[in-house]
Amino acid sequence: MIQTLEVALGERSYPIHIGCDLFSRADLLLPYINRRKVVVLSNTTVAPLYLGMLRSTLEKAGIAVLPIVLPDGEAYKTLASLNKIFDALLGAHCERNTTLIALGGGVIGDMGGFAAACYQRGMPFIQVPTTLLAMVDSSVGGKTAVNHPLGKNMIGAFYQPKLVLADIASLDTLPDRELRAGLAEVIKYGLIRDPEFFAWLEINLENLLARDRGALAYAVHRSCANKAAVVAADERETGERALLNLGHTFGHAIETGLGYGEWLHGEAVAAGTMIACELSRSLGWLTQDQLLRIKALFVRGGLPVAGPKLGAQRYLELMRHDKKVQDGRLRLVLQKGIGSAELSDVASDAQIACAIDNACT
Amino acid sequence: MIQTLEVALGERSYPIHIGCDLFSRADLLLPYINRRKVVVLSNTTVAPLYLGMLRSTLEKAGIAVLPIVLPDGEAYKTLASLNKIFDALLGAHCERNTTLIALGGGVIGDMGGFAAACYQRGMPFIQVPTTLLAMVDSSVGGKTAVNHPLGKNMIGAFYQPKLVLADIASLDTLPDRELRAGLAEVIKYGLIRDPEFFAWLEINLENLLARDRGALAYAVHRSCANKAAVVAADERETGERALLNLGHTFGHAIETGLGYGEWLHGEAVAAGTMIACELSRSLGWLTQDQLLRIKALFVRGGLPVAGPKLGAQRYLELMRHDKKVQDGRLRLVLQKGIGSAELSDVASDAQIACAIDNACT
Repeated sequence: MIQTLEVALGERSYPIHIGCDLFSRADLLLPYINRRKVVVLSNTTVAPLYLGMLRSTLEKAGIAVLPIVLPDGEAYKTLASLNKIFDALLGAHCERNTTLIALGGGVIGDMGGFAAACYQRGMPFIQVPTTLLAMVDSSVGGKTAVNHPLGKNMIGAFYQPKLVLADIASLDTLPDRELRAGLAEVIKYGLIRDPEFFAWLEINLENLLARDRGALAYAVHRSCANKAAVVAADERETGERALLNLGHTFGHAIETGLGYGEWLHGEAVAAGTMIACELSRSLGWLTQDQLLRIKALFVRGGLPVAGPKLGAQRYLELMRHDKKVQDGRLRLVLQKGIGSAELSDVASDAQIACAIDNACT
Repeated sequence: MIQTLEVALGERSYPIHIGCDLFSRADLLLPYINRRKVVVLSNTTVAPLYLGMLRSTLEKAGIAVLPIVLPDGEAYKTLASLNKIFDALLGAHCERNTTLIALGGGVIGDMGGFAAACYQRGMPFIQVPTTLLAMVDSSVGGKTAVNHPLGKNMIGAFYQPKLVLADIASLDTLPDRELRAGLAEVIKYGLIRDPEFFAWLEINLENLLARDRGALAYAVHRSCANKAAVVAADERETGERALLNLGHTFGHAIETGLGYGEWLHGEAVAAGTMIACELSRSLGWLTQDQLLRIKALFVRGGLPVAGPKLGAQRYLELMRHDKKVQDGRLRLVLQKGIGSAELSDVASDAQIACAIDNACT
């Protein structure tokens, strides 16, 4: 069974197909591929697992496949990798209507999307996420980017894919640590706007960890439905979309501060969310009971609930580079109970520093 | 006197102000600058001439100016230069609502615009062109890019400025060779869509070369009016906008083939236009008389009317990387008389090669 959602963005609208064994389904891909050639961007971990399957499906349909395989990991989400992609695209005479397929996790999707946005000022691209995190978050919504030594996702574009193809079966090979990291973004949707989903997660978390396909498909679908609704209302993040960054300003500071790749993005988001929740509690926006309920779910997911001890001043310094800074003030997503969040610059540096100290033990 | 045109693109609409001594006019700039800081990107040639004036105007209005000065020339329109801009922006804690001003010619405008498009996924930017070519062409319409060793403008974005400020007085310091190069793009508008303007140029070309400010202001205004009309009708070049590339596919081959910076862009466009006209003549779209009339105007402008002898096969090979290639076929802008042009893939490789041989002597 395939479930389909639409991200409603006018002429930039696109479908998200969620199901099992989709890599054999040429019929889902062909409408978005021009002519007889397609580029598949992947990494050294995912390519040996799934590139052959996808390639064989496309070649049987008469499409030549140009694979571009990069090293795996957040440390390679750089302008230098991007340049390698451009070299390959130009070397193979790719045109601006050649389609690029990003096959992999968030790093491949972010980089592939940004490369597609820039190549000849924009070529069509398709997201084929193979991690839980990419399926529920990064493959949907058109945020693409690479990192800079001074800040995560600092160089990028808003550029929507033509199609997202989420094959739940590909999660079979996902390492446990990455599955758990993906859960951080799943839990996020419950926290910021979907209290029923949060309650469902409290009941079903162990089914997700056990990779029950029905549970995974439900969680991916519900997460994507939340994300699609937010993105359709606010594509370029002038308002509500900023709430999707719950825990991310703290999380990006953790990732940049420790060096990209040390913690997984989802792990940094989990710890960052707990810092945001601690700050929300200190402001009276969240009760101690709610805080503990949130913490308990992350703990069951095997996720870190305390940030590394970089020192509050170092956190603040790193956070000053974040895209959410406006007019010199840090704007943070804070929790208002469970199921509701708000972007606010109400917290002072001292209050933020205090929450960091309390939540990084 | 200031003349103002609008590029009508809905919520991305913006004004083009054309006049003299505009660098002292803080009132024109301030509506597009957020808060107390602005970035000015320029190069080592233009900065000593005009950065001080612009900076003093802005500082008197209470705006801090962060200058970023790059080496001058097409050879520096690279991803490496772009990275230097990002380093400077992040090092100075620029936010995504900080405005970037591109002060210089086409290279600074293209690179500044692309940097602004990518920095934190998009910061506001202002074009302050100081060459004739940038005033009449590259600063208007939102095409931004850097070059790749295998092809010109291959990596870029469509990203519109908030404002274009064309100070005719700044042309006083433009070297003759660059003034002439700008005329190639001016003549282009006459050729592709404005026969009256072409006739005006036949009468007034020497006034432009003598830097008569009234004539220059008229030519800049009429060129921008043509460009604004085309861009408003076809922002992302799905149709009519492609006609603005008259001579550019051949011209880009000349620039890439000789090495960026050897010929000026306008010079390559002039020679490229003559190749396109020769091809148009061989197809019966242009009479011999019309061809000679066009050639005479370029000659009066001191522009090359023959391409370098790279060999027809080398031209074709370089042109295969052009963005106008679709489904493996070269699409070229061809002249239909004077004042009308058409994008066409009707010419065979042999016909194109023959025109190249005839027009590269």
